[in-house]
Amino acid sequence: MNSTVGDLNGNAEAIVGWTRKAAAAGASVVVFPEMMLTGYPVEDLALRASFVAGSIGVLRQTAVDLDLAGLGHLAVVTGYLDRRQGLAPRVGLPAGAPLDAAAVLHGGSVAVTSAKHHLPNYGVFDEYRYFVPGDVLPVIRMTTGSGEPVDVAIAICEDLWQDGGPVAVARTAGACLLVVPNASPYEQDKGEARLALCGRRAAEAGAPLAYVNMVGGQDELVFDGDSVIVDAAGALRARGPQFEEALIVADLDVAVATPAPLGDTTADAHDGTTMTIRRIQLPSAGPATSGQALLPITDGPIWPRLSETGEVYAALVTGVRDYVNKNRFDSVILALSGGIDSALTATIAADAIGPDRVHVVLMPSEFSSAHSVSDAEDLVKRQGLHSRTVPIAPIVAAFDADLRLEGLAAENLQARVRGMILMSLSNAEGRLVLTTGNKSELATGYSTLYGDSAGGFAPIKDVPKTLVWELARWRNEQAILADQHAPIPENSITKPPSAELRPGQLDTDSLPDYAVLDALLDDYVEKDLGAAELLAAGHDPVLVERVVALVDRAEYKRRQYPPGPKITGKNFGRDRRLPITNRWREPFGR
Amino acid sequence: MNSTVGDLNGNAEAIVGWTRKAAAAGASVVVFPEMMLTGYPVEDLALRASFVAGSIGVLRQTAVDLDLAGLGHLAVVTGYLDRRQGLAPRVGLPAGAPLDAAAVLHGGSVAVTSAKHHLPNYGVFDEYRYFVPGDVLPVIRMTTGSGEPVDVAIAICEDLWQDGGPVAVARTAGACLLVVPNASPYEQDKGEARLALCGRRAAEAGAPLAYVNMVGGQDELVFDGDSVIVDAAGALRARGPQFEEALIVADLDVAVATPAPLGDTTADAHDGTTMTIRRIQLPSAGPATSGQALLPITDGPIWPRLSETGEVYAALVTGVRDYVNKNRFDSVILALSGGIDSALTATIAADAIGPDRVHVVLMPSEFSSAHSVSDAEDLVKRQGLHSRTVPIAPIVAAFDADLRLEGLAAENLQARVRGMILMSLSNAEGRLVLTTGNKSELATGYSTLYGDSAGGFAPIKDVPKTLVWELARWRNEQAILADQHAPIPENSITKPPSAELRPGQLDTDSLPDYAVLDALLDDYVEKDLGAAELLAAGHDPVLVERVVALVDRAEYKRRQYPPGPKITGKNFGRDRRLPITNRWREPFGR
Repeated sequence: MNSTVGDLNGNAEAIVGWTRKAAAAGASVVVFPEMMLTGYPVEDLALRASFVAGSIGVLRQTAVDLDLAGLGHLAVVTGYLDRRQGLAPRVGLPAGAPLDAAAVLHGGSVAVTSAKHHLPNYGVFDEYRYFVPGDVLPVIRMTTGSGEPVDVAIAICEDLWQDGGPVAVARTAGACLLVVPNASPYEQDKGEARLALCGRRAAEAGAPLAYVNMVGGQDELVFDGDSVIVDAAGALRARGPQFEEALIVADLDVAVATPAPLGDTTADAHDGTTMTIRRIQLPSAGPATSGQALLPITDGPIWPRLSETGEVYAALVTGVRDYVNKNRFDSVILALSGGIDSALTATIAADAIGPDRVHVVLMPSEFSSAHSVSDAEDLVKRQGLHSRTVPIAPIVAAFDADLRLEGLAAENLQARVRGMILMSLSNAEGRLVLTTGNKSELATGYSTLYGDSAGGFAPIKDVPKTLVWELARWRNEQAILADQHAPIPENSITKPPSAELRPGQLDTDSLPDYAVLDALLDDYVEKDLGAAELLAAGHDPVLVERVVALVDRAEYKRRQYPPGPKITGKNFGRDRRLPITNRWREPFGR
Repeated sequence: MNSTVGDLNGNAEAIVGWTRKAAAAGASVVVFPEMMLTGYPVEDLALRASFVAGSIGVLRQTAVDLDLAGLGHLAVVTGYLDRRQGLAPRVGLPAGAPLDAAAVLHGGSVAVTSAKHHLPNYGVFDEYRYFVPGDVLPVIRMTTGSGEPVDVAIAICEDLWQDGGPVAVARTAGACLLVVPNASPYEQDKGEARLALCGRRAAEAGAPLAYVNMVGGQDELVFDGDSVIVDAAGALRARGPQFEEALIVADLDVAVATPAPLGDTTADAHDGTTMTIRRIQLPSAGPATSGQALLPITDGPIWPRLSETGEVYAALVTGVRDYVNKNRFDSVILALSGGIDSALTATIAADAIGPDRVHVVLMPSEFSSAHSVSDAEDLVKRQGLHSRTVPIAPIVAAFDADLRLEGLAAENLQARVRGMILMSLSNAEGRLVLTTGNKSELATGYSTLYGDSAGGFAPIKDVPKTLVWELARWRNEQAILADQHAPIPENSITKPPSAELRPGQLDTDSLPDYAVLDALLDDYVEKDLGAAELLAAGHDPVLVERVVALVDRAEYKRRQYPPGPKITGKNFGRDRRLPITNRWREPFGR
């Protein structure tokens, strides 16, 4: 499911709509993602009383609406925002401390609720700021058509990633199925890590595990879906698509041998805390009895997987599509230079929202090469984008008449004139400006504030330059495999990168070869290695010192950069938070 | 003390230098602020192994340096960054989990260390991301000249704000003095809250309490000093200056009646945890025996307090001074419009770094009134700033020739041309651009991205417009009281505010009266009230709905705004974190 932050009613309608499809496919239990009703992450909205009350109110109404829609006999598990009554247990939390909660909707009401036990507070997560931990493991007992009891337990997202807690308690409770709503953001290589984790936790719980992840973009995060069901031995039974909403139906053989008594019991959570097992009976939970024909399931249960490059590309497309659509922009506008960054950004945008919603501006200067214009025009023709040309020379001349700029200031001026033209067109025509910078530039500060960094969303800000090329090649290959025109001109991919802000300028005048640079940035930025470790990793000492200084110095630029989709293990933004005022310099022993 | 983030050696030198002064004044115990050695907050530097190792190494060297300087007989308590050996106890933390630590330096070595027990993770604080809690209360036993034992315990900052923990354990331990290093950021009305807190905690600890706070600006935070010593009954004994470094010397009568045995004991911390009381004897800790004359203390022990308005002004001056100097800028540059926002910003800058380091640019347009130029020129003359005039008409015309902009796009264009001129001059001349927007504008989005919002630091971004006027009047009054020229032209304070982007434009065309607006913003932004509460508070329903929508819609602009000093209870930035993509609209019952 792709839910939208703050759109309680829209998300609730999606719950009813997809529950109808699930019922038609014969489901008894339907599981939606973590915080499905509110979207995720809601950030400081979690602290606003009106929003929490809205979430709880819409949750109850959704239970009623499901029943009115003839779906009250299903057990519908969904994430939402709740609160725990009473005084704030911690400084900074409001009275009625917020909970990252899950509820079971059944028979027109909220049958039972719980809340996430383990709160992630690292990387992009700040949940200790918002939530208090849950200490209840709900177990819902349903009865199959043949009268067998089925006990289903619920854990939430991080509860799988940390030891002890709901997984351990689910085993104690003898649950025969563990369902897990998630809002787990995409990053490279995470899919396999998640699958291995689910297998291990299913074995620990001693029960099949249904892992249900959110889909879609929310500011810098992209949720990739990739939901899985594994059996009690950890073997894969179903796997949903990546980056797409889907109904994943699996028929599991999960009756309880010896039903435990209903009610509350206390259990050791094996993490230094105790939890309450809350076992309730759902009055009726058999399959739909309306006599309607069951919907044939044509996909799955194991969807094909995207390639490593393909999933990054899909994440970027998803991030752009959802930022544009959820913020209700009709179209985007971006500068096309003929280079690979803007070519890839335009292609991602066209794939995300269709070429008819993509407007590009060519803004040649006296330093623009012939190929920069012809390559840009070639891309426009290949993809059918809206294009216009605004030469910047007259405007630059008007500035120069007053200011007489030289060197870096003159270079930046050109970039800023372009940024201003884009912003003016955005204001006049109501289009979202896409920023075309990549992560290698953002890391080293190789960009102009309010120039090429201007815009509302930056699709490739977390993509290192070497991966920009790889994605462009991959996208062209996919087109050729599908018997289509390659969308990106070959020359944009193969020519040496240049900002074209002075005659004959090349990126390599200021920066090392990107393959060398990206390897170093990966070690310094993502792995957070210090000077000694960087040298031990074999990087060139002179280069390390220079690049580390560039990265440190550019923090102020990153702070004003637009948001863009996270695809790596550590993006600039929530993942990596450094002070601007910072005199720490890695010791290079001079 | 005003320490600088990352400048381990500079901060260590300051420790030695001020300890020398303290010794000359006859001190036995010298207490520096929390994280004195590293600066605060260090953010993700806490997670970098090389930085933690640097902190520990410089701490040890500082103990040696103190001894070499003949200061080894003092007990020097300072904050620093340490780590706890062993595997990471929590997901997201490195092996050797970071500690917000304090150490006692004595006799050339580190005598004992501890770490903050309560970790703030609300408002601007994210300490659960970085640190593990400390569970040791160090008690250092010193011997006075007359042979009496004095037991001094150490708590750190948040340990005072939350119940239980070090304060409770200090009572159990029978400590006769509790010293508390702090890095507690300024906000309005916090001084009195802190003083009351110190009094209450001293009574709980049953001991005098010395509260030592940091001074100075660090990105958006300003530390105000205002250190206090209260006796065991909570009565004020000493109070340091605000926003200034100072040596506060107090002679307290604090011997232990019945000395407890040395070594480790376990105590209930009255917060669900237990702590270790670690009592050590310092070999010698009497007053300096070098025979040198004791330094006369001329200030204090109770420094005069600033007025409510005066302390806000001092916070802004401190924030600007330290951002400029710690980031090694020689000078600042800003646009002067003749209006009150830029007039106040220029005055703050001149007070912070001297008028000779302040450069202003007048950028009149066809819509600029005569008084906008004359008021700006008047201010330049009053303060002796560097000034130049760059009319924007020719540049706007060059854009217009290509783009033919109207309405909002044409208004934004003028603001962006000005932003670009400033940035060009900044690049050419190496000056920091100051942004002149206030909090009311930032809240409602009444500014132009990359236009008037362009810059590196925004001195009044957390100052509501009504407070802008109050500060300007206050500053002029101070000048007059001191028999100086009022720095700000009266007309800039009294004339109706206007952006002057079209003929006859006034802020009140787009926004309500600022007194009405600021009261509403205080309730919506700072108090986080929802629709029903805002109406119940008596705000005009039509206005509430309009302003709430403006605030919600402007989140994307705030995200790209430069940093500026926090002076309110909730600034835009670390204090208030909302998603950009956010369809939640307060329910106005339509």
